Amino acid sequence: MENTGTDTLPLNMISSEEQETVCIFGTGDFGRSLAFKMLQCGYSIVFGSRNPRTSSLLPSGAEVLSYSEAAQKSDIIIIAVHRDHYDFLTALTEVLRGKILVDVSNNLKINQYPESNAEYLAQLVPGTRVVKAFNTISAWALQSGALDANRQVLVCGNDSKAKQRVMDIVRSLGLTPLDQGSLIAASDIENYPLQLFPMWRFPFCLSAVLCVFFFVYSVIRDIIYPYVYDKKDNTFRLAVSIPNRVFPIVALMLLALVYLPGIIAAILQLYRGTKYRRFPDWLDHWMLCRKQLGLIALGFAFLHVIYTLVIPIRYYVRWRLRNVTVTQAIAKKENPFITSQAWLSDSYLSLGILGFFFFVLLGITSLPSVSNMVNWREFRFVQSKLGYVTLILCTAHTLIYGGDRFLKPSNLKWYLPLAHVLALIIPCTVLVIKFLLILPCIDKPLTRIRQGWERSSKLSK
Amino acid sequence: MENTGTDTLPLNMISSEEQETVCIFGTGDFGRSLAFKMLQCGYSIVFGSRNPRTSSLLPSGAEVLSYSEAAQKSDIIIIAVHRDHYDFLTALTEVLRGKILVDVSNNLKINQYPESNAEYLAQLVPGTRVVKAFNTISAWALQSGALDANRQVLVCGNDSKAKQRVMDIVRSLGLTPLDQGSLIAASDIENYPLQLFPMWRFPFCLSAVLCVFFFVYSVIRDIIYPYVYDKKDNTFRLAVSIPNRVFPIVALMLLALVYLPGIIAAILQLYRGTKYRRFPDWLDHWMLCRKQLGLIALGFAFLHVIYTLVIPIRYYVRWRLRNVTVTQAIAKKENPFITSQAWLSDSYLSLGILGFFFFVLLGITSLPSVSNMVNWREFRFVQSKLGYVTLILCTAHTLIYGGDRFLKPSNLKWYLPLAHVLALIIPCTVLVIKFLLILPCIDKPLTRIRQGWERSSKLSK
Amino acid sequence: MENTGTDTLPLNMISSEEQETVCIFGTGDFGRSLAFKMLQCGYSIVFGSRNPRTSSLLPSGAEVLSYSEAAQKSDIIIIAVHRDHYDFLTALTEVLRGKILVDVSNNLKINQYPESNAEYLAQLVPGTRVVKAFNTISAWALQSGALDANRQVLVCGNDSKAKQRVMDIVRSLGLTPLDQGSLIAASDIENYPLQLFPMWRFPFCLSAVLCVFFFVYSVIRDIIYPYVYDKKDNTFRLAVSIPNRVFPIVALMLLALVYLPGIIAAILQLYRGTKYRRFPDWLDHWMLCRKQLGLIALGFAFLHVIYTLVIPIRYYVRWRLRNVTVTQAIAKKENPFITSQAWLSDSYLSLGILGFFFFVLLGITSLPSVSNMVNWREFRFVQSKLGYVTLILCTAHTLIYGGDRFLKPSNLKWYLPLAHVLALIIPCTVLVIKFLLILPCIDKPLTRIRQGWERSSKLSK
Repeated sequence: MENTGTDTLPLNMISSEEQETVCIFGTGDFGRSLAFKMLQCGYSIVFGSRNPRTSSLLPSGAEVLSYSEAAQKSDIIIIAVHRDHYDFLTALTEVLRGKILVDVSNNLKINQYPESNAEYLAQLVPGTRVVKAFNTISAWALQSGALDANRQVLVCGNDSKAKQRVMDIVRSLGLTPLDQGSLIAASDIENYPLQLFPMWRFPFCLSAVLCVFFFVYSVIRDIIYPYVYDKKDNTFRLAVSIPNRVFPIVALMLLALVYLPGIIAAILQLYRGTKYRRFPDWLDHWMLCRKQLGLIALGFAFLHVIYTLVIPIRYYVRWRLRNVTVTQAIAKKENPFITSQAWLSDSYLSLGILGFFFFVLLGITSLPSVSNMVNWREFRFVQSKLGYVTLILCTAHTLIYGGDRFLKPSNLKWYLPLAHVLALIIPCTVLVIKFLLILPCIDKPLTRIRQGWERSSKLSK
Repeated sequence: MENTGTDTLPLNMISSEEQETVCIFGTGDFGRSLAFKMLQCGYSIVFGSRNPRTSSLLPSGAEVLSYSEAAQKSDIIIIAVHRDHYDFLTALTEVLRGKILVDVSNNLKINQYPESNAEYLAQLVPGTRVVKAFNTISAWALQSGALDANRQVLVCGNDSKAKQRVMDIVRSLGLTPLDQGSLIAASDIENYPLQLFPMWRFPFCLSAVLCVFFFVYSVIRDIIYPYVYDKKDNTFRLAVSIPNRVFPIVALMLLALVYLPGIIAAILQLYRGTKYRRFPDWLDHWMLCRKQLGLIALGFAFLHVIYTLVIPIRYYVRWRLRNVTVTQAIAKKENPFITSQAWLSDSYLSLGILGFFFFVLLGITSLPSVSNMVNWREFRFVQSKLGYVTLILCTAHTLIYGGDRFLKPSNLKWYLPLAHVLALIIPCTVLVIKFLLILPCIDKPLTRIRQGWERSSKLSK
Repeated sequence: MENTGTDTLPLNMISSEEQETVCIFGTGDFGRSLAFKMLQCGYSIVFGSRNPRTSSLLPSGAEVLSYSEAAQKSDIIIIAVHRDHYDFLTALTEVLRGKILVDVSNNLKINQYPESNAEYLAQLVPGTRVVKAFNTISAWALQSGALDANRQVLVCGNDSKAKQRVMDIVRSLGLTPLDQGSLIAASDIENYPLQLFPMWRFPFCLSAVLCVFFFVYSVIRDIIYPYVYDKKDNTFRLAVSIPNRVFPIVALMLLALVYLPGIIAAILQLYRGTKYRRFPDWLDHWMLCRKQLGLIALGFAFLHVIYTLVIPIRYYVRWRLRNVTVTQAIAKKENPFITSQAWLSDSYLSLGILGFFFFVLLGITSLPSVSNMVNWREFRFVQSKLGYVTLILCTAHTLIYGGDRFLKPSNLKWYLPLAHVLALIIPCTVLVIKFLLILPCIDKPLTRIRQGWERSSKLSK
């Protein structure tokens, strides 16, 4: 590393700041990757190991000493060993007194131990300042410098000076430190890399249940019923027709379920006359995964759009249209233009397209970088007002799609109505109640409650 | 909060750094949410209130004292009351001397008062160091930890040490502080949460005007004219046909308007012989909302694409194609394959698709996270070169779409030409002038001017 | 700048911290833009110039002095002149001793000089602390405050205190400093603004080669062969039909090439029995541009989808369908419904749509902001598992599309098989080998090797 310009300065602090020495206990895969990266960024590395002999795997330029010798060379010691092996550190308590220990460990299961690894380490070796860091970074990302991998390092610790020094090291490696607070946060930090989309579990399960239900429902109506009554083999409809019936229904229901908790919360606040009583847990959880519900609904809507656009390419549709045309040509029949049919067809197509367009806008504003660029008022405008516009357009699209086939008795097969009629129940309920909530006689008290007024006490803001 | 390991240390500074005490004046909704969050992150909170009695609404672990008692417990005092109530602080001037006051207030209207709330506070209580912060965060986001809400806290203040301490608090709450400079910036910070897409006003108004104009134009040509002359009822065309005529026209015109200010700026620089004279204000403002114009154009292009792809599903189109086929079958007519027609049809479709593809690429690179990952040269390459490629493809698409129907007299209804002919005026102008600007005889002097050369003086870079 | 509240304080440090003076050598375009921005943010600016006379171009409020006078007014001196003119600084070595020099220069070509400008500056003027910064920001972005431009300032330097001061200046201008380490990184920082998508070169070249190859292949099969044998003029197919054959083939092959290096790496590791031997350079480079290969594949898939959806709008397709219908009507022929054909048609459409949907999901999770929000385990789940699901769906889509036309001798024109048969070679190979790698008998040793086990030594984790 070039020291041009700083050699001749008589200021001692500069020379000691450059080659900062960091000690790493453990010569496993992660310890080596971390050492490799830190050497690249100008640090001096000293390994502490059970067997202090240089190995060809260790980065060149790093010393290997025994634990106690290595510990004396640095203020900061990175403990790159598994929690199972933390015991040996108790013997070094005196040597480690006052130093900063960085816990980089991960577990295999969420909440595998009663206390977090960092807190366990702090108990084992009193007198040290424990900081949790680096466990969200993979060894491969450190070595290859892959920019795709998450660059954020979650850091927590009780001592803020120690935290600052660790965060400086993180920054000098080109990563982004995020301070999560005191060592209490270590459990969350250790669970974080083990999670697999925790906020998406409930929305995914709900979508799967709805999909399966409406799939079976449609199969009964569109494949089994015609087979039982007309001996028609409609099984090929499983590939495109049935999915194109299930996906829009699930999309519309999930979109309505995004706005239903807000409605329920408003009704609860009006009923209780205050906004300071906590909502039930299920309502809180529901409100926290509204974004995930909406994004899954957008995915289903996207699938529905493409399944609809391939309709004219399908062999079945071309065969059916050709048959109608040939029959008409052979019979030399007139086919008058039914304007109402044209209105119906064009209207529900147009409403569906506009609804999908606003739905995509909602999805784009959910992207993290876009939602960070808008302020709170703009975000609420898009998600709330545009959101209801989307819901209205999609519900109107489904209503008009039915046309006059809606509740004709001839459309009831085994007393099961058309599938999309079922789908319209929740959206229409949400829209009707929202309309009622907008009426001034109800909106005024609700706004007062939301600004802090309480019906039962004189405490006002 | 665990203090394991730090209890036994004789170092006093560590214990005083952990439980930093922050005082909050005001027990309203925002003050309580802020206290709740700060207690979670390890701070000790003291409320100052008119009525210093503990309430069930206050987070447990926070004391409630009178204003002067609370103020003495901490260096930092968050003023969580409305501006209207700031008067009481003048009585506390002596107690507050030398302390850091954090102004978190918001107003209801943009520029509601002649000076910002923070400057007013600084005038009221001389001797304090006022820092503006936290007004962009909502109380609900603080309490629920919702990650969707904007996590950026705009901070400004005259005293940089005070600013640093407030920014440290912001970071320890898991938010991202952005330093906006001195207290002069407080007005902008207080206006920020009240804005509703300020840069989008002009582009939206312009799009609305263009939409309405071409909508009326198309209605006159496609619905009123056939009704007057042929008594044909074409009103159903309002749903899909007319929008599919308006949207692509507006999209193409807006896209051309994205590149027109650059052309005007280049002509101005060539005319004046220097780049150091300021542009007219309207040109500056136009250049600043080019991105918004482009994104709105992309939205219209997206709608046009989907409206075009649903064409074969429409009842009207199927009825018309069926009629043509049946008529031909009954008349037993031959229908020879016109290769030029096939070329025309396939060409304008292909050009449109490629133009839309590059348009989508332009949109993706406008996303904040993507534009942060590319350097200045790459960004200009995409936005400028790919942008002109998009404009060329879309203009060619529109030109070929007209085919030979372009300026046939038979297409003039009431002397109004086809709508898309009007749309082609601005794009063709832009492309022709851009082509002239690329010619070496004009590009050379322009590049010299852009690198600092001035025609009228000898000052060269 | 308002100093309300700080005037009356007897603390001297506050007044000296506010109006920090920064010196700028050079009154060219960039120096002036930087001064303008820094004055806005509360700094005091002093220009050093060859001709120390005030010019109308300089921002008001900035002094202009000779170099040595200006240098004495500040600790930090920004050298805003071209490298060619650095010589004059040697005469000022004594004046500049101990000060911080900020090198903001850019070159015209990558690696234009043997050493970076910053290192050259450090050699010229020993005794100073050189920091590289600001070269990634454009003058126009500084003046107009355009938020689109890259706000990240790459900073490097040997002295960390000097780096911290420069990074503080960067933050106070509202930009984001990124510490790149010691002065060795200056070459990379100086090359950064000159790069034009370096990681995309190889993927683009590969796509172009594949495109050209399959374009020529399809032209031979679909245009030249029918012309030679049937005198049919199929040239119009160049617009839509041929691209719609080339794009999906290239998309599928590129998608398979995203997962092939992982397979090759796994085979290498199994063969060598260790994971610690470096991969060949070509494999390393291939693995680093997998994301770019995938995104280009997604672009081609997107084009394929739209080219497919416009099929029913094409004149050629409508003419062909009309002819078939009219022929059938005139011949009064029956056209029975072939269920297997309906299954085939609907299946490959459905598989293609689902494959495209997951492909878009992969693309969305590649966005920087989205990939920063997921942890390592979630990222691998999406990119690896969902990625293979996409590959399976798209390969199945292509296999079924061929139907039974696959290897019929009648489809061999001049012994060239259908184009998409060629395209299936790499994907099927990848999927078969991946299936073999998943088998427990092979997966167990591979997992052990990836956790650090080595076949030839006893060193185990």
